[in-house]
Order: sequence, then structure tokens, then C-alpha cells
Amino acid sequence: MRILSIHASRMWYHAIKKTKIAEPAVVREDRMEECVVLFCCVEKLDEQNPEHVIDSAKKNVMARLAKLDVRRVMVYPYAHLTSALGSPDCALSILKGLEKSLQAESLSVKRAPFGWYKEFEIHGKGHPLADLSMTICPYEGTECDFTCPYCHHPIMECEGEHACPGDPPV
Amino acid sequence: MRILSIHASRMWYHAIKKTKIAEPAVVREDRMEECVVLFCCVEKLDEQNPEHVIDSAKKNVMARLAKLDVRRVMVYPYAHLTSALGSPDCALSILKGLEKSLQAESLSVKRAPFGWYKEFEIHGKGHPLADLSMTICPYEGTECDFTCPYCHHPIMECEGEHACPGDPPV
Repeated sequence: MRILSIHASRMWYHAIKKTKIAEPAVVREDRMEECVVLFCCVEKLDEQNPEHVIDSAKKNVMARLAKLDVRRVMVYPYAHLTSALGSPDCALSILKGLEKSLQAESLSVKRAPFGWYKEFEIHGKGHPLADLSMTICPYEGTECDFTCPYCHHPIMECEGEHACPGDPPV
Repeated sequence: MRILSIHASRMWYHAIKKTKIAEPAVVREDRMEECVVLFCCVEKLDEQNPEHVIDSAKKNVMARLAKLDVRRVMVYPYAHLTSALGSPDCALSILKGLEKSLQAESLSVKRAPFGWYKEFEIHGKGHPLADLSMTICPYEGTECDFTCPYCHHPIMECEGEHACPGDPPV
């Protein structure tokens, strides 16, 4: 799971259009001030251990919030942080799980709807601790063979796809 | 190189503080309307072939701009899209190269300063083609052994780092 965490003065979104995998959205438009926005992206291998991913994500987020002294969080689904998306069912369940586990810490939590095209506006504070990228590892132990030099994800060799496109993917 | 491309109604930034690797910033604050913002992140392996990375990035960006019918672009350095950053010298040279090659296409181009903490505000349009993540491959041919199942980057096996942290990096 990739999480891009941005300390924001304000965040606003408006879910304007469903994709095929949209959850029914009760709240189509919402906003939050003086908060941390978590741009979240569930990845393929997270399906192997969703509970561990939720727990690790919560711990990482809580550590960040403590550093920033912030108690308001928006969980914002954002598929564009990976090239290996998890299944919609798994993604939604992990996002809901993260929302619930943060609420259990008595934080003020909002979650933007999953699977919608969303217009948004964010004002990022830009101080030295404002922006952080987190990679949540789905493995608990030492099951992986090595890590990718690009994204630092642990990989088992059998998972590697043998291919070189030559030209970059569009 | 990772590029997160966002079709925006407006983008504004204010470079508020230097990091150790900051370029001298003439323009500390700027904005652009009805544009595409390219959140750019140069990666470690891009150092192997910067010219090819610039050229591929330009082609990918031009294809996107044509689809959106947009001629205004902001190149915005954003280190938080990878865990394997390229060297500052290489990153700045690739960003400047991309800026120059887009200007050569008669686009209106702005580039935000590299190596600064930046406060920013973006209003993303959120239509189905508004947000796109691009991965620019540094390899020209078939030098790589396989691709990472997470980020789809081509990897040579010798580059893999044998390690499993167990807990996710903070």
C-alpha cells in the first residue's frame, strides 16, 4: 500500500462521476480544514494480508499525526500512486478498515468515496514535515527475496514479470 | 522517472524554505490556470540514461496534452513519488531538460524551483482523463531481466537489494 500524506490547511472534493467499481456514495462533496490528507493506494500484493496492511498503515499514520500534532484525517482513495493496483473489493475493505482503526483512536476521520472521479482542491502547508510518502509492506516476516531498487517493495522472485517494454508505458 | 500528471483549473505555489540541495530560486511564487501540472520525481536508475529519460518523458507528456487539448504545463518537482531518488544534480538536469524540450514544442511552460519546501494549492478537474501516473523507463533496449510487480519498473537482477525490513519503513 502506498500512502502520500499531506499536511493541509484545507481539502475539498466533489465526486463527479462513477467508475465501474464505485461504491455507493452517500457523501458526494465534503471538506476538512487543518488536517492530514492520506492519498491511499492499495496494491496487488496487499491482498495477501489485508489485516496486517491495515494495522501497519494505522501505526505509520498515527506516528505521523503525533509528529504534526494533528487529530483530523481524511482518507482519500487515489489510484495513481502505483502501477499494480489491488482488487477493488480488497482496496475498499482496507480503506474502510483504516478509517475504522483511526476512528478507534478518537481521531476525527473522513473518508472520500472509492471508485469515483473526484474534482478536488488541496492547500498543502509545505513545511519540512508536511509531505511524506509511506510504503506499507504486506509481509510480516522474511518471506521476500529482495526489494525493488525503485519502489523498495519486497518482492519474491517468482512474482517478477519477465519483460522489457523498451518504450515507457503511456 | 515518475510523473503524476494532473489536469488542473489552477495551480499555485510558494517556495518557503530551502533544503540543502535547493537551486537558487529566482521565482519563489507563481501560478498557472487551465494547465497540466507534472509532479515529477527523478529516480536513481534515471542517472544511467538522462537524455533518453528526457526524450521519453517529453513524448509521453505531449501525448497526454494532445488528448486533453492543453498547451500550458507546469513542471513541479515532487520527491514523494518514489523511494529511490536520483541524485540532485541528475534530477535538476532532467527537469531542466524536460522544461526545455517542452518549450521547444511551443508550449507555455513554467518550472517550480527544485529542492525547496513549497506551500501549494491545486484544483484538480477530476474528469476521467484528468489524473494520470506515468513511469518513464531509463532503458532503451532489453537490458533488464524482469519488471517489479509493484511499480512495473524494469529491474536487472543484480540491482535487487536483498532485504526484508519486516516492519514497513516510516
